Amino acid sequence: MMAFKHAVLPLGFEASAVACGIKKSGRLDLALFYSQLPAKASCKFTTNKIEAAPIKVCKRYLRRNKIYRAIVANSGNANCFTGRRGLHDADNTAGCLSAALNIKKESVLVASTGIIGKYLPFDKIKRSIPFLVAGLSGKGIDYAKQAIMTTDTFAKEATVKFALGGKRITVCGVAKGAGMIAPNMATMLCFIMTDADIAQGALDRAVSICVDNSFNCLTVDGCMSTNDTVIVLANAAAGNVVIGGGEKFELFKSALNAVCLELAKMIARDGEGATKFIRISVKGAKGLTQARRAALAIANSNLVKSAFYGENPNFGRVAAAVGASGINIREEDLKIKLGPLAGREINIEVSLGRGKSCATVYTSDLTPQYVKINAEYS
Amino acid sequence: MMAFKHAVLPLGFEASAVACGIKKSGRLDLALFYSQLPAKASCKFTTNKIEAAPIKVCKRYLRRNKIYRAIVANSGNANCFTGRRGLHDADNTAGCLSAALNIKKESVLVASTGIIGKYLPFDKIKRSIPFLVAGLSGKGIDYAKQAIMTTDTFAKEATVKFALGGKRITVCGVAKGAGMIAPNMATMLCFIMTDADIAQGALDRAVSICVDNSFNCLTVDGCMSTNDTVIVLANAAAGNVVIGGGEKFELFKSALNAVCLELAKMIARDGEGATKFIRISVKGAKGLTQARRAALAIANSNLVKSAFYGENPNFGRVAAAVGASGINIREEDLKIKLGPLAGREINIEVSLGRGKSCATVYTSDLTPQYVKINAEYS
Repeated sequence: MMAFKHAVLPLGFEASAVACGIKKSGRLDLALFYSQLPAKASCKFTTNKIEAAPIKVCKRYLRRNKIYRAIVANSGNANCFTGRRGLHDADNTAGCLSAALNIKKESVLVASTGIIGKYLPFDKIKRSIPFLVAGLSGKGIDYAKQAIMTTDTFAKEATVKFALGGKRITVCGVAKGAGMIAPNMATMLCFIMTDADIAQGALDRAVSICVDNSFNCLTVDGCMSTNDTVIVLANAAAGNVVIGGGEKFELFKSALNAVCLELAKMIARDGEGATKFIRISVKGAKGLTQARRAALAIANSNLVKSAFYGENPNFGRVAAAVGASGINIREEDLKIKLGPLAGREINIEVSLGRGKSCATVYTSDLTPQYVKINAEYS
Repeated sequence: MMAFKHAVLPLGFEASAVACGIKKSGRLDLALFYSQLPAKASCKFTTNKIEAAPIKVCKRYLRRNKIYRAIVANSGNANCFTGRRGLHDADNTAGCLSAALNIKKESVLVASTGIIGKYLPFDKIKRSIPFLVAGLSGKGIDYAKQAIMTTDTFAKEATVKFALGGKRITVCGVAKGAGMIAPNMATMLCFIMTDADIAQGALDRAVSICVDNSFNCLTVDGCMSTNDTVIVLANAAAGNVVIGGGEKFELFKSALNAVCLELAKMIARDGEGATKFIRISVKGAKGLTQARRAALAIANSNLVKSAFYGENPNFGRVAAAVGASGINIREEDLKIKLGPLAGREINIEVSLGRGKSCATVYTSDLTPQYVKINAEYS
């Protein structure tokens, strides 16, 4: 298994991007990911009750359809809290794209990220679609990964390649997300493409496990987004014997997990205004739920995160965060180990002394810059 | 009923304060509140599983004892996560004080606020106790209210006076708290004294209701403290007919509620680094729990609070916070009204369209200064 920290599209995939004018800065803001072959899809969406229009539209398509060909994603506008018009705009985006590509509308998945509560400038998107389609190429991924960025300071991309029965399989993912990041999930969009041939059930199972291990172990500010979307497309172009269960499944899952985890860590590293990447490991918990709850309570504590920004070894705040998390612990059993605080990475190890389960979550520090970014953003 | 924004001690109460050297700044850091008469007490403590030593000691005294005479509180050190030695120090503080005042040890309640995880400099406290006792007076409240402050920028004090059957009753409270403030409760200490004659059951009932309406509707940073303490002492010096239920109870409850609410609002106003006081009213909820949950979700959202710091009318973030709160709402039913953002006070009104319940919570904005205060504090 070979891992790369950049995106290399699998067989049969192309991408492109344009600056259609949603972002006033003139930066790339509309991305297209395209599979030349019919692909299976497996998706995870936010559990926020206020869900963005593109998510509602995706869910509708996913109920009707089994084969997918494209993902179109814009940044700069979340198309959320936009009522009927928002749904219409998201559906029409898929419609225009399907016409230009001569594919079925329901085979186009849509995603948006950006400000909530403003209508999508649909005309700008519509006008740009011919250029978006014309630009499709294997190298287009280098633009598409930028077009989904909002406050991100760098593009998030990861690729894993592995061999399966003499065939080479690629899993390639790109993601965005820097603020409004909390588990289940985050303002993050993540698009993963693979040329593996895999049964729908196996794909769904692998995606559930890997998203749970990665994006659901990630928090920047505890704020759950309305637009979180993970879409995995598998187009079978590698020609491998179809993956169902057993060893083949484990291999695929490992590759997918590596891509998801790498992207999740990049999002934490790029947390808005962050100066530190923080890894919080909780052990000695009674069950995974307890371990993760304790770890996320620490990761979401403004006081802990401010202390780490100041390189202030305030373990009392870690204790207070665990104590407030609602899990049943005793002061005598609680052990806290803080690694050196001076570098770019901080490791916290907490032992609850209640059992044998453990969990690791990722976060960033809270800085004055985070507040400034989110005070001025509009 | 007359309300004052300063502390006026009720009959039979005295207070004093000294700088015993816990705070390196040389500021006042040890306060004593004393009742010349035996008083009933009603207390509320943090629900954080890591509870500070003084809280454990208070709970022990409260199990054994019915009559109280004094509260001793220090700032600059939370005496929390300090194991057996911490318990010993808190118990000995009560012990030294009881000896100096010639009262029972278990009639002295103790409280601490400050950094977690450091031993209390007990010798400094012990040496200061004779001076603390010698300084007791009616005017001592003006020093005691300062001695409980940590990052507070002003002392929190409120008094309500009312007449009951020809007797004048006073309810006077002081509080501290600026960060690590979240409901159930906050890093806040609040000491309320009244000369009312009230039955224990009625006192407990009034305290539960009033704390729930005030301090439990307050959040600065969503971080629940290990040291939260509300102590209400009632010494019966006013000579009124004992308050049990009915109209007399309602009158007392109104006075206590006014004091608690005033102090809670002062804490929100003095949130660490705050530039805005934010009042969030949720209506149209299905039950009080739902209303409060929605309101607190908004109040605890870093993104909402950063936007208000920037005077940025980002109602989409309010919607996202409500959607993430776990309550069942529909986008179509959600109405959000933001008042003007330019002043010191911001009002948010949210209607959920699910029922008839409402709740109001209080918070402050999130500012770069909050992060700086909590990065540097140690």
